[in-house]
Amino acid sequence: MEKSIMSKVGSQRKSLAEVLLAPRSVALVGASDDPSKTAARPLRFIRQAGFDGDVYPINPNRDTVLGERAWRSISELPVVPDHAFILTPTDAAIDALQECAELGVPVATILAAGFSESGAEGEAREERVREIVRRTGIRVLGPSGLGMVNVRRKLALTANAAFAEPDLPVGGLFVASHSGSMIGALVSRGKARGVGFAGLVSVGNEVDLSVGEICAATLDDPDVTGYMLFLETLRHADKLRQFAIQAAQRGKPIVAYKLGRSSAAAELAVSHTGALAGEDDVADAFLKDCGIARVETLDAFLESSPLLARIPVAQTSLSAKPRVAVVTTTGGGAAMVVDQLGVRDIDVQHPSADTFARLAAAGVKVSHGRIVDLTLAGTRYDVMSAALDVLRSAPEFDLVVAVAGSSARFSPELAVRPILDSASKSPELLPLAAFVVPDAPEALLRLTAGGVPCFRAPESCADSIAAAYARRMPSPMPAMPASESSDTTRLLDELEAYELLTKVGVAHAPAVAVDAANGSAIPDDLPYPLAVKVLSADVPHKTDVGGVELGVRDKDQLRTAIEKIRTSVSANVDGFELERVLVQQMTKGLGEVLIGYRRDPQVGPVVMLAAGGVLTEIYRDRALRLAPVSRETALEMIAEVKAMRALDGYRGKPRGDLDALADAIVCVSKLATLTDVTVIEAEVNPVMVLEQGNGVVAVDALVKTGN
Amino acid sequence: MEKSIMSKVGSQRKSLAEVLLAPRSVALVGASDDPSKTAARPLRFIRQAGFDGDVYPINPNRDTVLGERAWRSISELPVVPDHAFILTPTDAAIDALQECAELGVPVATILAAGFSESGAEGEAREERVREIVRRTGIRVLGPSGLGMVNVRRKLALTANAAFAEPDLPVGGLFVASHSGSMIGALVSRGKARGVGFAGLVSVGNEVDLSVGEICAATLDDPDVTGYMLFLETLRHADKLRQFAIQAAQRGKPIVAYKLGRSSAAAELAVSHTGALAGEDDVADAFLKDCGIARVETLDAFLESSPLLARIPVAQTSLSAKPRVAVVTTTGGGAAMVVDQLGVRDIDVQHPSADTFARLAAAGVKVSHGRIVDLTLAGTRYDVMSAALDVLRSAPEFDLVVAVAGSSARFSPELAVRPILDSASKSPELLPLAAFVVPDAPEALLRLTAGGVPCFRAPESCADSIAAAYARRMPSPMPAMPASESSDTTRLLDELEAYELLTKVGVAHAPAVAVDAANGSAIPDDLPYPLAVKVLSADVPHKTDVGGVELGVRDKDQLRTAIEKIRTSVSANVDGFELERVLVQQMTKGLGEVLIGYRRDPQVGPVVMLAAGGVLTEIYRDRALRLAPVSRETALEMIAEVKAMRALDGYRGKPRGDLDALADAIVCVSKLATLTDVTVIEAEVNPVMVLEQGNGVVAVDALVKTGN
Repeated sequence: MEKSIMSKVGSQRKSLAEVLLAPRSVALVGASDDPSKTAARPLRFIRQAGFDGDVYPINPNRDTVLGERAWRSISELPVVPDHAFILTPTDAAIDALQECAELGVPVATILAAGFSESGAEGEAREERVREIVRRTGIRVLGPSGLGMVNVRRKLALTANAAFAEPDLPVGGLFVASHSGSMIGALVSRGKARGVGFAGLVSVGNEVDLSVGEICAATLDDPDVTGYMLFLETLRHADKLRQFAIQAAQRGKPIVAYKLGRSSAAAELAVSHTGALAGEDDVADAFLKDCGIARVETLDAFLESSPLLARIPVAQTSLSAKPRVAVVTTTGGGAAMVVDQLGVRDIDVQHPSADTFARLAAAGVKVSHGRIVDLTLAGTRYDVMSAALDVLRSAPEFDLVVAVAGSSARFSPELAVRPILDSASKSPELLPLAAFVVPDAPEALLRLTAGGVPCFRAPESCADSIAAAYARRMPSPMPAMPASESSDTTRLLDELEAYELLTKVGVAHAPAVAVDAANGSAIPDDLPYPLAVKVLSADVPHKTDVGGVELGVRDKDQLRTAIEKIRTSVSANVDGFELERVLVQQMTKGLGEVLIGYRRDPQVGPVVMLAAGGVLTEIYRDRALRLAPVSRETALEMIAEVKAMRALDGYRGKPRGDLDALADAIVCVSKLATLTDVTVIEAEVNPVMVLEQGNGVVAVDALVKTGN
Repeated sequence: MEKSIMSKVGSQRKSLAEVLLAPRSVALVGASDDPSKTAARPLRFIRQAGFDGDVYPINPNRDTVLGERAWRSISELPVVPDHAFILTPTDAAIDALQECAELGVPVATILAAGFSESGAEGEAREERVREIVRRTGIRVLGPSGLGMVNVRRKLALTANAAFAEPDLPVGGLFVASHSGSMIGALVSRGKARGVGFAGLVSVGNEVDLSVGEICAATLDDPDVTGYMLFLETLRHADKLRQFAIQAAQRGKPIVAYKLGRSSAAAELAVSHTGALAGEDDVADAFLKDCGIARVETLDAFLESSPLLARIPVAQTSLSAKPRVAVVTTTGGGAAMVVDQLGVRDIDVQHPSADTFARLAAAGVKVSHGRIVDLTLAGTRYDVMSAALDVLRSAPEFDLVVAVAGSSARFSPELAVRPILDSASKSPELLPLAAFVVPDAPEALLRLTAGGVPCFRAPESCADSIAAAYARRMPSPMPAMPASESSDTTRLLDELEAYELLTKVGVAHAPAVAVDAANGSAIPDDLPYPLAVKVLSADVPHKTDVGGVELGVRDKDQLRTAIEKIRTSVSANVDGFELERVLVQQMTKGLGEVLIGYRRDPQVGPVVMLAAGGVLTEIYRDRALRLAPVSRETALEMIAEVKAMRALDGYRGKPRGDLDALADAIVCVSKLATLTDVTVIEAEVNPVMVLEQGNGVVAVDALVKTGN
């Protein structure tokens, strides 16, 4: 026991990174002696890779496992191991975790499935794990995780069959994945391309340790140069955001491949990992606001990191669209890149007259088009080198893409070598990326080894560039009031909602409450024509129950309208008695928009802009950001929503007051910063956009607060 | 001369395919003795590949070229060669073509650039080539083409550096490409994947021989099993359509990768190949209506042919969306495919209860989700085999996708072998496709060799499936009146336009012409309220010049309206004198749509449906088809336009008469079949969609005729 306690004390002093990712000693709880079994794999892989730490197979029924000495239980071990990999089935796994925790093992990985992805019974198991974590302080990776791999330390603490792979590719990328099998696929795909890894973690259900916390543990590791996140959903988004902020500060890029663009995939994420899948565009806004590059293609996931490293997120935040130059030895190959960038709204730029003059002076003969096409005749080291020198120092560009044709396969010295040399000799010039058109694995390996971002397909090239420039510098986490559970929420009536909106600076059309019981209470000076609406927090969807009358022109019509509303709402809402109506000046704008706000259960406060009306729902045309937002961001949101073009002087129509709209978005986003009240959700809809100079006004609003 | 004439007679009897693609004798006009020169390549590649026909290098200054006997001119040759490859610069090339034509060479390929892509001078050169073709009957490939390759015959009649490649991969695919360099890239990419080719042609500017005619020449070749078209634009679309119809009848699939999705790429196609680039969605509709699978990714271009072959276009035309089953050994890998299919609007289907019961009976243990996830534990030959047997015979599916995880790399006998065996043993069951998640080149080679459609990325897998099912069975070419040049076109006035539309069956709101000069001419029984519009073919855009007054309620208002229109139009249109107005009953529908028709200069008659209004322009939400269309196709078009959902009982709103709308689309599309008049363009806008049962009515129309 003495020894065990000593070790325990020792372990507690180690950092999370040390025990989770670089343990000196590991226990394999439930290690199998049958090499065909999954529970035998970790020991096999560890021995194959040549880990130099201590490994303790544990099997209650055997003295040896796969020819090695085994222990009957964790408590029999001569030391408290840094990390226990629990390979036993679900219920036994929880018992083993309990035992590890009591002995002071600092971290345990649970392989077994059968937790939150398996209904109520699984939820209860997950709660038991959480309780053990809370009570003892042990940290848990998983459950339903395939383990972790420290490539440099040659520790494949995983049951993923892919790690039978000899010679794992060593490099700077750290992978965290919701899918256990993907870490294996990435290793083999990376190996084929010369892309190497520092570590790979299958995070499982993230009951305790999450993607964000795990990655954050490696931020100070100089061997980790960038991150790859394979996400099926977002969990513990706060920790992910904290990590992303720090990564951006250190210039370590993060790329994410996130499932869930389609509703079918979102549903799958729920059944596969037990996660609550939110709307994909909310997740998308979150990732971009965290400075994370979200790619759409599997190739780009693997290929984009060098480009992201070369273009710091602080820089991409400054220009909305990158100005890309393309130089090529093959017109068709370059045209594919131009087209793929174009469909991602990035137009390849024409070089300036000055740049063409410099090209000519450098002996590069090209026709004056959008791309610098050296043609077959210009497929020469000196020509490509000269073209790269000129383009990489041209002030009209942010990035140069070089496209190499057939020569990349047979004569890399002609067009690929100059790319490599240009990148290494002149790192101070513009970033350079390469796309090779033929199958040219050697050229790609050489470019990758030389640190040049390079792509095997026009889609991944364009995808990576678009994702790199869609990143936004993450802002510090706002101080957030504690999340409220739904049973304490309260809907405000429309007048209360306006009051709250006025507090943050959003204007509404003049409105007063009128006593609906007493006809004589109608004031004389109302600004007819009016909109008349039932005023009650119990009737949030007024139109649906006949609670709105429009175009009311005088006091008589107003009395009639009130009676109509009374009859209609009473008929539709059980037990409702009309006490008050809201009368509001009718307002006509150039267009209607919706500004929304909510504390998203996954990512926290977000603000949304969408056009009003049916078509916008159909097109799902909206812009989202983490709240609060700056005025600049609000203007970006307006530019993102396509329907807003109709309000921006489209085809000679009058211009709407988009400056005032931006202000209103900023104001609504400030609901996130209120400290006296927690706003769960707000929908200001419609907001009428008036002509330029006349502002915007809310003419309806729905607000749900948390206290 | 005797000999030469004999050969000439002999050559003329040969088919185009023989002389163009399988010549027995070739002349290399302008072959260079300097191996570093482009003009030396064809002889080098031909000798390297081992072509067994006769090769005649021609060089006016040398007796030998690269160590072989050379001739001073074409006329000195002992025979008239089947095919001359003209390697000389632009102007010399035309002279050489002239010489070939006079000697009776049946086909010549021109390498030189400097034709229609080079402005007026180039256009003139191109016209000279056309004139030689017309006069002599010689056929021309190019100019600006890199030549052709007959892989089986080992004839690399090309200057493309990629054909230094040893061991060109032999197979059934025939490639026609606007980009000369791409044929090389495809060969190397194909080779890496075990994809082989029968032939590859760089078609250049298609001054004479076009993609359609070249491919059609190979239709009867049993060695050609499918076609790959790399298109920068559409030229000679009639020939392409004719070829596509025949290919569909023979069950030979066609896949196209077409540039021009983005405006930047379309512009590039103009400058790069001298083509007139049209709107991409017109080209897209054309390709689909021709039964051609248009893919979006370069990988799918290479990978999709086996899938297309397995799913005949006649079959894809029957079901709007394929019902796809996914079976996997890795949840994450399958989820990527599900997601990628989902973003292409293809939802992977849940197996039926019966199918799950059959899986259970076959010993396949899976949870009942959208995908059949065998998990790590089910990564076994017998489990995957049983699952494939059940799914491939389930009536609720059209296609089964099998996703193989890490085992594909190390243990293909576990999950890849059963896919291969299932496909070969039971070809009568549902089509089967495979996606392998890790880097597993051997597994892909084996699957490809076994004829199983297989994909290295989830994007290319989903792209190929979507493209396969987006094909429509091509209908026979309609008899088309000759195209009219623009100087004979005529705009109809609104009343004439209605008359023509009535002829094809499109209803319009009641309208009569009223003499604007004479107030007393106003009839008494007009159906007020009215729309009043200037009636003149000289004022097509009536609203823009103040030529429309709405909501006119009586005779006095009508007189006022006429005067207002007179003043306004006279002020805006020089020299215009108002003679007549059209008065039309005001009609209010549930929504407004636009039905358009035009004889597209590239693809011929097309019909279009779009929603009316500004937002629809902004979203570019429209459906296009080759005209005429069937009622079924018209309904498909309605389903394609997103804005139409607002007219289909969206959120409890009344339903529009979409059946009548379909009829109207059919009627407008019949403008293509009129023989007494050639309609160049028609825009029926707006068409008011009334409530179900009440039909649709045109309330404005613009028609341009060709005679």
